[in-house]
Amino acid sequence: MTGSSPAKRGRPGHDLESILRAAVTLFNERGYDATSIEDLSRALGITKSAVYHHVSAKEELLRLATGRALDELFSVAAGVEVLPGRAIDRLEHLVRGSVGVLVAELPFVTLLLRVHGNTRAERDALARRREFDQLTARLVKEAIADGDLRQDIDPVVTAKLLFGLVNSVSEWYRPGRAGHAGRQGAGSADVADAICKLAFDGLRAA
Amino acid sequence: MTGSSPAKRGRPGHDLESILRAAVTLFNERGYDATSIEDLSRALGITKSAVYHHVSAKEELLRLATGRALDELFSVAAGVEVLPGRAIDRLEHLVRGSVGVLVAELPFVTLLLRVHGNTRAERDALARRREFDQLTARLVKEAIADGDLRQDIDPVVTAKLLFGLVNSVSEWYRPGRAGHAGRQGAGSADVADAICKLAFDGLRAA
Repeated sequence: MTGSSPAKRGRPGHDLESILRAAVTLFNERGYDATSIEDLSRALGITKSAVYHHVSAKEELLRLATGRALDELFSVAAGVEVLPGRAIDRLEHLVRGSVGVLVAELPFVTLLLRVHGNTRAERDALARRREFDQLTARLVKEAIADGDLRQDIDPVVTAKLLFGLVNSVSEWYRPGRAGHAGRQGAGSADVADAICKLAFDGLRAA
Repeated sequence: MTGSSPAKRGRPGHDLESILRAAVTLFNERGYDATSIEDLSRALGITKSAVYHHVSAKEELLRLATGRALDELFSVAAGVEVLPGRAIDRLEHLVRGSVGVLVAELPFVTLLLRVHGNTRAERDALARRREFDQLTARLVKEAIADGDLRQDIDPVVTAKLLFGLVNSVSEWYRPGRAGHAGRQGAGSADVADAICKLAFDGLRAA
């Protein structure tokens, strides 16, 4: 649409970033399908055409939001893949880094995790999530082959449970609560520690 | 509404159960807010008034569906609370039983886990979920006090991660796939085994 030129994107008041954040909040609260550009403009106190100055369609907001979460997760994965050492250590780095992304970009990752696949943007996001899951499953298989991870759980199930555990944090973690402060600060590291202790060593007292 | 008398609920064609199942499928696919009684009647190939013969409102369907999932989870919890023995064993029973309910009533539990709290029925379901979570947290604290669970993770975080792990199964478990067959059959027990191994003893090879 005509409004998506760089000049208009930069105009003061509501920029693309603030519109995107408001959209993600609404999508997470009401569901993507149930949220219209009209709802978004009302929540922001601006006209629909002011929203359309920045984005061509609701789907563009979904693509931008899920893209941000995915780009950060793949950036962690790229960093992990070049690490030397054992697969189990790379897997732990992937878990820690993913918790960091989840906490730092909580609304964006929450939206990504709720994507169903009804539109092209959703299907594209799901395809990239599957790619990330496959990377995790490869690391799990490698760590089992190294003799570092238990062999009596199917590796695909292990990978799914491990990232189910990580992703479940989006259901209850709220930044700013006691002990949960800051971008990748103590809060994120505490949660990542708890997950790694539980997942790799188990809850049972030694 | 007049249509909710027992006689009309029992009329042939679409009974309350089949309407409820169709509604839950749509709610899970599109979101509760985005699904109307009109969408439901169209999916079932019946008129809106035929739907209103069975339920007074969309919210009644949500209440019935989340109620079924919650009743079964609390039934597991009630059975666990009277078990003799150590808290860690009761906790493991609670995890196994909850996985059984999740697998047996997958669409209903999936809906329950996606409830946001915008309507009275949703807030009531969330309140019962919190009650269940508190019960889990109490068992975790008791097992830590017994010296059976590690003390270096906050008990509330432990409880949240444990049930985050259980609930994450709803994201990927599909009944009828190889090795995942039957109501509380081998599939459910396999998943419950995997979760208990991971959560209590950890993934690291002994």
